[in-house]
Amino acid sequence: MKSHTEYIWFNTQKQREIVHITETVRDAVLKSGVREGFVLVSAMHITAAVYVNDLEDGLIEDIWEWLECLAPFRDDYRHHRTGETNGDAHLKNLIMHHQVIVPITKGDLDLGPWQRVFYAEFDGQRRKRVVLKVIGE
Amino acid sequence: MKSHTEYIWFNTQKQREIVHITETVRDAVLKSGVREGFVLVSAMHITAAVYVNDLEDGLIEDIWEWLECLAPFRDDYRHHRTGETNGDAHLKNLIMHHQVIVPITKGDLDLGPWQRVFYAEFDGQRRKRVVLKVIGE
Amino acid sequence: MKSHTEYIWFNTQKQREIVHITETVRDAVLKSGVREGFVLVSAMHITAAVYVNDLEDGLIEDIWEWLECLAPFRDDYRHHRTGETNGDAHLKNLIMHHQVIVPITKGDLDLGPWQRVFYAEFDGQRRKRVVLKVIGE
Repeated sequence: MKSHTEYIWFNTQKQREIVHITETVRDAVLKSGVREGFVLVSAMHITAAVYVNDLEDGLIEDIWEWLECLAPFRDDYRHHRTGETNGDAHLKNLIMHHQVIVPITKGDLDLGPWQRVFYAEFDGQRRKRVVLKVIGE
Repeated sequence: MKSHTEYIWFNTQKQREIVHITETVRDAVLKSGVREGFVLVSAMHITAAVYVNDLEDGLIEDIWEWLECLAPFRDDYRHHRTGETNGDAHLKNLIMHHQVIVPITKGDLDLGPWQRVFYAEFDGQRRKRVVLKVIGE
Repeated sequence: MKSHTEYIWFNTQKQREIVHITETVRDAVLKSGVREGFVLVSAMHITAAVYVNDLEDGLIEDIWEWLECLAPFRDDYRHHRTGETNGDAHLKNLIMHHQVIVPITKGDLDLGPWQRVFYAEFDGQRRKRVVLKVIGE
């Protein structure tokens, strides 16, 4: 079994931002030399998500509006008694999930025709990480 | 390490449909010869989900009603400016997640007594795929 | 490839309870002897979740309030025609997801500084299980 680990860093300009990372994930898989296996793409923070969906600007705007509706910014989260103001970012993380596994087949990402991998930042403008962990052979 | 990859195709009669696939997943694991490992069950589309829950018709109706409430069909998603009409299907996919890992122990799916694996189609009546990827030994 | 499987049991005092399990997951990884790989942490029930987020009491209260809003207890779920009364617990499970993968690097859990692993019980006061499955080398 082979394994390969990389960390990719983000420091988004906006507090909330979606970043397309499919090619970065593919590069890590190529570097790993793994032909058959899994790559785990996992946010290392509790206020950011990793998800797979469509690279289409209108949809990305829809996702932001929808998330704000299901997990809205509010002043009065109990979590804010700690001095934080990002309660909504934790809930947005829970709804979107913080990780995906992409299968690796014949040395490449085994994604459907429209599937792309995204990092969703809910509390940015600071350095944050995603771990890419490849296992297989 | 062994690996085994299969693609299963769906072409649902209805636009929205939930299909029970536990036995198909089990068959792939048996074919793989893997005794200890993981099987990834992952939709290759951005308008379909894979989830684990109960095989009970009433609950399945509840899930549809609930999803329609949290991620409703609407005419005015921005995504529809592309000519698509399936914005809600993308959001339903995000809430349900598009993949699960089933652990494999002693050559079989290591599921709890009521856990079953399902494919949830949100924009069907056309050919769509799920990848089953087994790794282990 | 090495693998290691453990089952951890819960019998919560309350019907709904969140239990911090990071150290239990770490112990299983140490026992496995795996230095590079994955540990799957997966609820074996359809009315319980496993998630990664912050160990902070205010946030945990916020999560309960938010879940009750998105997947409320109701008398009239169709699932209740079976005699069950836990329709909301199934929907809470779907929103929170029932499993996470924690990457293992240099023999330890490769989590971000604030990431902790939790078991969320939505229908407790009885014996329920989580499977920990480690693979790697």
